[in-house]
Amino acid sequence: MSNEDNTNHSRQVIFNISKEDSFPDWFGEIVKVAELADIRYGVKGFTPFLPWSVMSMELMYDILEDALQRKKHLPMLFPTVIPESNLTKEEEHVEGFSPDVFWIESIGDGVKLEERLALRPTSETAIYPLYSLWVRSWRDLPMKRYQRCSVFRSEVKSTRPFLRGREFLWIESHNVFKTHDGARAQVMEDLETTKEVVTDNYLIPVMVFRRTQWDKFPGGVDTFAADTLMPDGKVIQLPSTHDLGDNFARAFNIQYLDENNEKKYAYQTCYGPAVSRIYGALISVHGDNKGLRLPFKIAPYQVVVVPIFTTDNEDKIMKYCREIEDTLRAEGFRVHLDDFDATPGWKYNYWEMKGVPIRLEAGPRDLKSKQAVLFRRDSMERETVKIDKLGKRISELGDEIDRTLRSNAEAKFEGLTIDADTIGGVDDALNKGKIARVPFCTTEMDGASCAEELKDKTRGEIRGTRIDVEDKPEGICLVCGKPAQEIVYIARSY
Amino acid sequence: MSNEDNTNHSRQVIFNISKEDSFPDWFGEIVKVAELADIRYGVKGFTPFLPWSVMSMELMYDILEDALQRKKHLPMLFPTVIPESNLTKEEEHVEGFSPDVFWIESIGDGVKLEERLALRPTSETAIYPLYSLWVRSWRDLPMKRYQRCSVFRSEVKSTRPFLRGREFLWIESHNVFKTHDGARAQVMEDLETTKEVVTDNYLIPVMVFRRTQWDKFPGGVDTFAADTLMPDGKVIQLPSTHDLGDNFARAFNIQYLDENNEKKYAYQTCYGPAVSRIYGALISVHGDNKGLRLPFKIAPYQVVVVPIFTTDNEDKIMKYCREIEDTLRAEGFRVHLDDFDATPGWKYNYWEMKGVPIRLEAGPRDLKSKQAVLFRRDSMERETVKIDKLGKRISELGDEIDRTLRSNAEAKFEGLTIDADTIGGVDDALNKGKIARVPFCTTEMDGASCAEELKDKTRGEIRGTRIDVEDKPEGICLVCGKPAQEIVYIARSY
Repeated sequence: MSNEDNTNHSRQVIFNISKEDSFPDWFGEIVKVAELADIRYGVKGFTPFLPWSVMSMELMYDILEDALQRKKHLPMLFPTVIPESNLTKEEEHVEGFSPDVFWIESIGDGVKLEERLALRPTSETAIYPLYSLWVRSWRDLPMKRYQRCSVFRSEVKSTRPFLRGREFLWIESHNVFKTHDGARAQVMEDLETTKEVVTDNYLIPVMVFRRTQWDKFPGGVDTFAADTLMPDGKVIQLPSTHDLGDNFARAFNIQYLDENNEKKYAYQTCYGPAVSRIYGALISVHGDNKGLRLPFKIAPYQVVVVPIFTTDNEDKIMKYCREIEDTLRAEGFRVHLDDFDATPGWKYNYWEMKGVPIRLEAGPRDLKSKQAVLFRRDSMERETVKIDKLGKRISELGDEIDRTLRSNAEAKFEGLTIDADTIGGVDDALNKGKIARVPFCTTEMDGASCAEELKDKTRGEIRGTRIDVEDKPEGICLVCGKPAQEIVYIARSY
Repeated sequence: MSNEDNTNHSRQVIFNISKEDSFPDWFGEIVKVAELADIRYGVKGFTPFLPWSVMSMELMYDILEDALQRKKHLPMLFPTVIPESNLTKEEEHVEGFSPDVFWIESIGDGVKLEERLALRPTSETAIYPLYSLWVRSWRDLPMKRYQRCSVFRSEVKSTRPFLRGREFLWIESHNVFKTHDGARAQVMEDLETTKEVVTDNYLIPVMVFRRTQWDKFPGGVDTFAADTLMPDGKVIQLPSTHDLGDNFARAFNIQYLDENNEKKYAYQTCYGPAVSRIYGALISVHGDNKGLRLPFKIAPYQVVVVPIFTTDNEDKIMKYCREIEDTLRAEGFRVHLDDFDATPGWKYNYWEMKGVPIRLEAGPRDLKSKQAVLFRRDSMERETVKIDKLGKRISELGDEIDRTLRSNAEAKFEGLTIDADTIGGVDDALNKGKIARVPFCTTEMDGASCAEELKDKTRGEIRGTRIDVEDKPEGICLVCGKPAQEIVYIARSY
């Protein structure tokens, strides 16, 4: 009767697009049919997010914030706007971000601002001037803070809902330490957090790289990032974390008095998991040709109850279903009873397309035998369960579904990397949707021209050196022929 | 050793300012000393919010969103920017908001935008163009949605952290109905939600008014709002809810096919609880001369554990305190063990100033007798409790503290309203920090000039007619002498 329950009853719901063969179509259609976002807003790269995606992203934020808070990061919130003079304080940083900045120049009916304000593309230059006031003594350190917000970047690349928007949702964590070692340890902790949150909870496997010097965060010393694989064989960057050294501390004068009462520059890190982008990767990695497959932990509804009745037993069956709904909700599950006037078959298709992990069907026979049928979206299998065992079984199935989604995704990583030592070999590997592992001269700035040549010839980008596996460089750089100092990985990317 | 736990150990913490006698000082100082916000950001009206306030506002959002979702509103999220052509579609609306709009006019290094973009001052004109696409049939209605976001208004009045900022945090709920009756019922539901959330949970009593026609939401039909009383005798508007009639539906072409396949304009409402502003009111209403007093439900830490030891028993006492901390946390309380190297006395003062509802003290005697001392911030009273009864007692105390804060606040409303039938009488009442109840010609547009005269002479504003009490209009308007059609309430306001 209404649109109060995430159901759009006037829409065709049978979804059938091959995710592997035509990923861009699959993605565009599922965003539309499952009502995740609406691309008709009319401003390039700005996309309203609809309830079904917002509810999942909210659960993703909960998991991420819980991990950060357990690791002693405290939440704060800075303004959305940054004065131009702040933005220009760190030279490389402003060069890196200023082409993408949205500028506020006036208020109301033509009142020019004395100083232009940027919509934050990232918040270092908003936050660090106050860090320079807050950090006074070694007793104030470490200072570990984060904020949850949206950021704005006028990307030149084409935009796509979730995966690349001009406004996106993220968390940015900004941390200050006494020593460079303290900052390096934070960067490693961030990579652990990424594995814990993105892989253990969102079920997305990642490879972790140290980025090259020409691909690091503008103004930082070193960038580490996690990449995952999309269905079209391209990789996408999920969270990255940055060792800023004392570069920003010097630009923003963040100093502390140490134990001997001497003034020292502090060391900093920042970490930026983009929740809306990870959501885009999540639906892409786990979905199948019938639509979404949402992890049990991330699904807005974990269980949808579908009553099966005829006119003569409707009241009894509805009562039975409502009791089940109430019991499961009291046990802590996110449950939705679909009592709309549509056929069970229509509801099956609809909620399969929306990716609800478990469907519960209950009809006259189930009522009589005090049981219900559980259907798993991951394997499309059914089983019958006694009513007093439902909660326990749903909990087990939730775990099983999440294990299956994760191992399905991990299986895509097997045999993914192919060794190559020629440019042609790299091109072959990339054309097969693989990642090429190659000997390379250097990831310092000197290697940039080789990387450019490689990109021109193969459309492949160097993702960096692996820090989660041990790679022994040998042989010569496949571009310039100089001795290889690194083993790097090359992929086409988002 | 660090700033990881909301503690700033280098700051003076004994707070002693009379809230009633010098409220502006009290407010400014508590914001600074309790580290709620930092006014040194450098852009007028834009204020970073610090962990202690953000953690409370997060809890406030949880309570509010839970209430909305129980009442079948679903979350969504629209872009921060609105194209100028959208903003100008409803004539009164654009007139009401355009003087306050921040305009984005260019990107990067001087690329002018084809169409200016507004930072949303409120999102009707962002959302309703898509509602006109989403609403097609009566089956789609009611459509009840909300978003959690920040909004931007370049207010002419002076700004103050939380109470009046140029960027503030809120929820805006936007709802579509088949009939005007449906919309009116939603407005009444919103007022119920306000009482449930703001009074029952945030413990802030309110008076509910129907605003005058010259003070309603620009473009709407009718505005209802809840006001509360600040310590300086001024009132502040907390949530307001608006009956938009079909005005916006006509401007944005939101039509549905009814059961007879006829096209009808829909009716709409919107509701905007400003969480950061309510937080400002909350600390003002509940605080005392020693600092904050946070409701148990809203406190980032509900219990702070302060160990009391000498060098020879430090290990044992710390172990005892950690066990208590773990147990209470497992029971679901938000607990913080203050293990910093400072005296118990310093910690007492610090956490009293920060408003933590319950302090738990444990020393050698407590260890020996398997007990702890509980201190209540509201009444400043201590009691000793056996260790196995702690959880139960803390839970009871939490309820008691919340009841006390609420009844303290409600007591301020007693005798607050004074009848007046002359302008001098109104002025006298307002000078005593009271609210004047007066006979008034009309709250239709014809009454606007009387209201203006009244404001000039008394600095008092007409808050509207009460809808939560029955007032019988009699006598003559105290300004123009025409027969009084309404009883209105006059107060000085924020």
